Amino acid sequence: MASDRLARQIQFILEIDKLKSIMRRSYLLNQQRHENSAEHSWHLAMMAILLHEYANEQINLAHILKMVLVHDLVEIDAGDTYCYDDAANSDKAEREQKAADRLFAMLPDDQREEIRNLWEEFEKRSTPDAKFANALDRMMPMMHNYYTRGKAWKEHNVGSDMVLDRNSVMKEGAEELWEFTQSLIEDAVNKGYLASPKKKEDIRDE
Amino acid sequence: MASDRLARQIQFILEIDKLKSIMRRSYLLNQQRHENSAEHSWHLAMMAILLHEYANEQINLAHILKMVLVHDLVEIDAGDTYCYDDAANSDKAEREQKAADRLFAMLPDDQREEIRNLWEEFEKRSTPDAKFANALDRMMPMMHNYYTRGKAWKEHNVGSDMVLDRNSVMKEGAEELWEFTQSLIEDAVNKGYLASPKKKEDIRDE
Repeated sequence: MASDRLARQIQFILEIDKLKSIMRRSYLLNQQRHENSAEHSWHLAMMAILLHEYANEQINLAHILKMVLVHDLVEIDAGDTYCYDDAANSDKAEREQKAADRLFAMLPDDQREEIRNLWEEFEKRSTPDAKFANALDRMMPMMHNYYTRGKAWKEHNVGSDMVLDRNSVMKEGAEELWEFTQSLIEDAVNKGYLASPKKKEDIRDE
Repeated sequence: MASDRLARQIQFILEIDKLKSIMRRSYLLNQQRHENSAEHSWHLAMMAILLHEYANEQINLAHILKMVLVHDLVEIDAGDTYCYDDAANSDKAEREQKAADRLFAMLPDDQREEIRNLWEEFEKRSTPDAKFANALDRMMPMMHNYYTRGKAWKEHNVGSDMVLDRNSVMKEGAEELWEFTQSLIEDAVNKGYLASPKKKEDIRDE
């Protein structure tokens, strides 16, 4: 009944239902469970709609929406790689390339190329749109951590040096949002949600 | 740290995390749990990206993406109303208007108006964009039902007459997708995933 083209599109739409079962390390704000990558992608898209005025450069919101909606699809095969897990990050790129090869090949050629380009643009972080999309993707977990009193940070022994180091790229996309995020990080250290290496040292010195 | 405007935007972004805990009647394709409204909204946005070529009329994809991303926000207060639950549907509009009043008032005025307009446009189904967005919103649960062998249909005693009656509006937005969906419904009846009133009658007559 469906054309070959529609049949392929439908198969892909069914396949990506699996993103709803890919779990991240961050918790929902109500702390009842971890967040999955599909709902995270939705939340990023909402952030883009509401915060695009803070982009450093002129950006294309429609393009950013597409980018954040597809940016985690490769996790269907490659899983979510925790950003502070060095071992898992060593082969992340390879795993994700394989995932992209398999997943996007399900689509008609023109759409395979479109979705792959969106994903690669996000990963390369070299265009204004990708820089802003990445800034949102970094900002969100920090909000989840701050407003759950550092629940995931504490579970994974994450220190403020690691958080600052990883997330300072936010400033490439959205300086004002990075300033806001830095104030959250600082306050998280003050409130004991996030360990400060300096403080750790002080404790050792005592 | 944050301007009043950014503070309001952040509060809204935190508030809508609750959509991840609003459960629908449809199941994930792996049947392990019900789907929530945040991941459903993401999936609809992906459908819009992949299927917008089937819209009956010329549409604006960026506008449709925004519309489907926000279309269920009111469920944070009003809950998900099952489409075949007549009692719950009798006060749905009133509950959702109240929800929109509270939720969207959290935003700066310009954004309150933008998000509310998107939601109302979706609800009214009078523009080409809204017709197409609604067609996707009707199509998705039928795919979930068909590919889980009618799990939610069976649980709620849904018959093919109800499904056809509710979803024929799909043709206003996307005739080809409605044809495809009708073929799914027909096949679902043949395979016993969905009860046919005609067949029920036959059984009573025996």
